[in-house]
Amino acid sequence: MPKKVDRTVRREAFLAAAYSMIKKHGISGVTARGVAAEAGFTTGALVHYVKSMDELLVESSEYAARDVRANMLEAEEEPNPLEALRGVLYLALASDADKRGNWNFFLGFWERSVHNAAVRKITHLRYEEWLKRLSRLIRRAKDDGQVAPDIDVTLAARSAMALIDGIAIQVLRSGKPPSTQTQRQLIDQWMASWLGAKIVRPPEPADQPAITPPSMMSSVPVTKRAASEAR
Amino acid sequence: MPKKVDRTVRREAFLAAAYSMIKKHGISGVTARGVAAEAGFTTGALVHYVKSMDELLVESSEYAARDVRANMLEAEEEPNPLEALRGVLYLALASDADKRGNWNFFLGFWERSVHNAAVRKITHLRYEEWLKRLSRLIRRAKDDGQVAPDIDVTLAARSAMALIDGIAIQVLRSGKPPSTQTQRQLIDQWMASWLGAKIVRPPEPADQPAITPPSMMSSVPVTKRAASEAR
Repeated sequence: MPKKVDRTVRREAFLAAAYSMIKKHGISGVTARGVAAEAGFTTGALVHYVKSMDELLVESSEYAARDVRANMLEAEEEPNPLEALRGVLYLALASDADKRGNWNFFLGFWERSVHNAAVRKITHLRYEEWLKRLSRLIRRAKDDGQVAPDIDVTLAARSAMALIDGIAIQVLRSGKPPSTQTQRQLIDQWMASWLGAKIVRPPEPADQPAITPPSMMSSVPVTKRAASEAR
Repeated sequence: MPKKVDRTVRREAFLAAAYSMIKKHGISGVTARGVAAEAGFTTGALVHYVKSMDELLVESSEYAARDVRANMLEAEEEPNPLEALRGVLYLALASDADKRGNWNFFLGFWERSVHNAAVRKITHLRYEEWLKRLSRLIRRAKDDGQVAPDIDVTLAARSAMALIDGIAIQVLRSGKPPSTQTQRQLIDQWMASWLGAKIVRPPEPADQPAITPPSMMSSVPVTKRAASEAR
């Protein structure tokens, strides 16, 4: 194997090891020694591949985000704009071990970004990317006439972003984690109430029974519900 | 001065010093040496009064929360349930230096709570207290007929809690901090849309012009707006 490829492979092994530890223990539970051991190398080998703990954290967060980003791009391609938005928001929820793992990066970055320029930069970039994605999705639904015509797109995107961050915090740190079903109810209810979303039809993943929260249905104004049912 | 009082006074000086540093630099910027210097004592004196850094953080967060809690209790006493809720939510926003200072505790606690039992305990207690307060306020508005009659109180409280946490994160860590006006718009719009709040009348603090966001007014269903205007 050529030396360069070997280097890349070994580097990835360290990033994967850091990601695996952060998933389990949060960002503050990660040590150089632990990451090296998890990857099956010595601490000396690790420092040969990454310059600092912060570089390791930033790069392993990029490594962890790859899958999520690919899934989000796929969800965005759903032709129904409102369902594309719902799909992307569902993907952002801390609803399984992998996603909670990704959230552990972000929660750690929030604190670490205060003092570290590299961590701050990537945190700000992610927020910019996320706000743009949400705005784009809401604008598409608006252009398509699926949401209230006078929606302020940026304000709506900010509220969705706040809701998603806040839900993740409740899952990971409040001591009263909402179930995946409750997390989705919060998204559905936000779409129905804030956006005045006209089509209330949650996607039905094969591995999960479709749930239409009663509180969601009942909060949709009667006229809109009637229009939706008439389709 | 009796010895006990002196001890309490000195202890408070350390808590105030820690609070002051956390306001400026976040929780990870706090060191024993820095706190001692800020309070005008030696590090040796500090360890005489608090047993550990975590004890210092937990106790100074209690110290910082005193004022906020008193203000919230006062806001809760507003006779109009919906305005009481709005007042409490506005107080929770990261809208000035003091409040951003209080949020710095919480953001640090989120990460620190993973590994420290004392920090975790106080974080969970605060969430419990906050969820109860929000539920109580929303229930009052519901009993008073000010919000949609079929509101799920707990779900609504969870969404308000998520929104508030998420807004604070945007203010302090996203690189795109929303203005105080935008933060309040997010609350107003949430009350109008999620709660279907029937009275849309933001309080008018003497030091600030009253702002009725156009997007908020327009999202209130026409029938409700008419009812509100007829009062």
